[in-house]
Amino acid sequence: MFEELIQKLKQYRTVGVYSHIRPDGDCIGAQVATCLWLKKNGIKAYAFNDDPVPLNLQWLSEYFPVREPKEKLLRKCDAYVVLDGNSPKRFGSYSDYIQDDPKPTYMVDHHPDPHDGFDFSISVEKASSTCELIFHLFLQNDVTQVDEQVAKALYTGILTDTGSLQYDSVTPETMNIASELLRLGQFRPNEVAEKVFSNKSLNQLHLLSRAMGTIELFEDNQIAIMYVTEEMLDETNTTNDDCEGFVAYPLSVRGIKAAILFKALGDGVKMSLRSKSDEVDVNKWAREIGGGGHKKASGAWHPGPLEETIKEIVEIGSKQLVSVDKP
Amino acid sequence: MFEELIQKLKQYRTVGVYSHIRPDGDCIGAQVATCLWLKKNGIKAYAFNDDPVPLNLQWLSEYFPVREPKEKLLRKCDAYVVLDGNSPKRFGSYSDYIQDDPKPTYMVDHHPDPHDGFDFSISVEKASSTCELIFHLFLQNDVTQVDEQVAKALYTGILTDTGSLQYDSVTPETMNIASELLRLGQFRPNEVAEKVFSNKSLNQLHLLSRAMGTIELFEDNQIAIMYVTEEMLDETNTTNDDCEGFVAYPLSVRGIKAAILFKALGDGVKMSLRSKSDEVDVNKWAREIGGGGHKKASGAWHPGPLEETIKEIVEIGSKQLVSVDKP
Repeated sequence: MFEELIQKLKQYRTVGVYSHIRPDGDCIGAQVATCLWLKKNGIKAYAFNDDPVPLNLQWLSEYFPVREPKEKLLRKCDAYVVLDGNSPKRFGSYSDYIQDDPKPTYMVDHHPDPHDGFDFSISVEKASSTCELIFHLFLQNDVTQVDEQVAKALYTGILTDTGSLQYDSVTPETMNIASELLRLGQFRPNEVAEKVFSNKSLNQLHLLSRAMGTIELFEDNQIAIMYVTEEMLDETNTTNDDCEGFVAYPLSVRGIKAAILFKALGDGVKMSLRSKSDEVDVNKWAREIGGGGHKKASGAWHPGPLEETIKEIVEIGSKQLVSVDKP
Repeated sequence: MFEELIQKLKQYRTVGVYSHIRPDGDCIGAQVATCLWLKKNGIKAYAFNDDPVPLNLQWLSEYFPVREPKEKLLRKCDAYVVLDGNSPKRFGSYSDYIQDDPKPTYMVDHHPDPHDGFDFSISVEKASSTCELIFHLFLQNDVTQVDEQVAKALYTGILTDTGSLQYDSVTPETMNIASELLRLGQFRPNEVAEKVFSNKSLNQLHLLSRAMGTIELFEDNQIAIMYVTEEMLDETNTTNDDCEGFVAYPLSVRGIKAAILFKALGDGVKMSLRSKSDEVDVNKWAREIGGGGHKKASGAWHPGPLEETIKEIVEIGSKQLVSVDKP
């Protein structure tokens, strides 16, 4: 699969690499590793994102700078690679630029229902992460090019997209790649995990403390919900970014099948939906209100207000639950 | 290493296997897997523990029953295996029984400073977990005996003793074993992780919410502390067991070097000490007041009261910190 991408990339002098907007560990990890790969193979690389790199990932942009896409640099690019998203919109301003100044674009991603307009795509839904895929870019070219920086970048994406190697997307192959990255990069997992996860401010922990107080159960304890409001951010001096990973808490309640984090922050209510049951497909659930993602992890938006949103979303989800007889 | 243990065990008809008191995922996982190994190799096995198996691990005792050591059963045993602890005291009533009725005892463990009175010991401090070691019991005898139950039991111990594969004790070898367990047992990590970690009661999350409100920083933000009091348990209808894993929260504060969870529950103050810096050895720290464990994770007890304990323990720890000039 990657042989063809490698051949294509090696014909260019300059390649622009995009990670998706509102970046996370997987897209930044994949982007930094891909740019290092290009550089190691004599190709000039630029890493672009409309949004800033989150605080807990900024150490990765020391390995390779991630910058705003400016026209001057974009004009220099012969082609683009877009990572960890499968439609042009996911890459923000890229979707406009590419219409004004068309250039070949290659996609590597693991989300369902890919857009088919890219010039070449590697789309593997069963991969744990885009970083797991990008490891093959090295494996099928020259695996000795995996140095400490590449290994830590790829490890970051695998770690963050699998909830620390806990999701059902993790296969024996994922674990073998994690093992290879530790070996080739000569590091231990804590060196990445502490930067990525153990990097919370006191304020963020206070926000989490407040949010956990809102956890409620619905539909005979099959759905857990938690919410964050603008007021809670104000009181703890935090921002939307500080809610990263919060959905894991309602999801950790014993016996539930699905969990939702609602964020009533400004324009309507954003939500993260998670399933821990094969019965519940949160991609289907989110699609009913125009969102989407994976079976086990999806996102959506509702105009609000919060209370109505919760009621409506729980109702949609309840259709997928085995009905429990009530007395 | 295990060849010798295998030879020794195969000469017996009945073997009693102990896990340490106040059991955790690693000792129960290792115990259940070892008992299944004995059974598969024609040796009658009993699994003993003075204390009950924690709620989130009870599914493992469906694979092999863990029971209180009763004299009637103990008398039947030709020998003992003690797991995940390295001194007789760690196995509770075992330390008395063995004096009254001496029988060969074999130890498998990964903690520092092992007691040298056992008849044969496999003590590997650098192993991530006792379960990582017990995998070699299968590997060096007949790896096809690793079925789903064995694999999940061993995976549980690796997972829980490494904070979900995040600690610096995780080597490429640990990851390879995790990969092999997923392959041989034909399961995905979430099947174990959800049982072990995503198994919290609402009450427990409310306790966590309260506890997180107590996080404070000391010594120029190098030490984070959190505490739990009897009153907090009463108010949330929880018990000491519900504090399992809480120390991860103060440890997750950005930039700190060590974290301590204090539990002022009844008799004095128990504490869990964690380090995320090579500068800080919490084993040394805990030993100053009669506790101990590993460099990065230790435990200790102080007569209290809470406020004094915190002050004294922070002072002991501060000796290991690079002094920061104060204005």
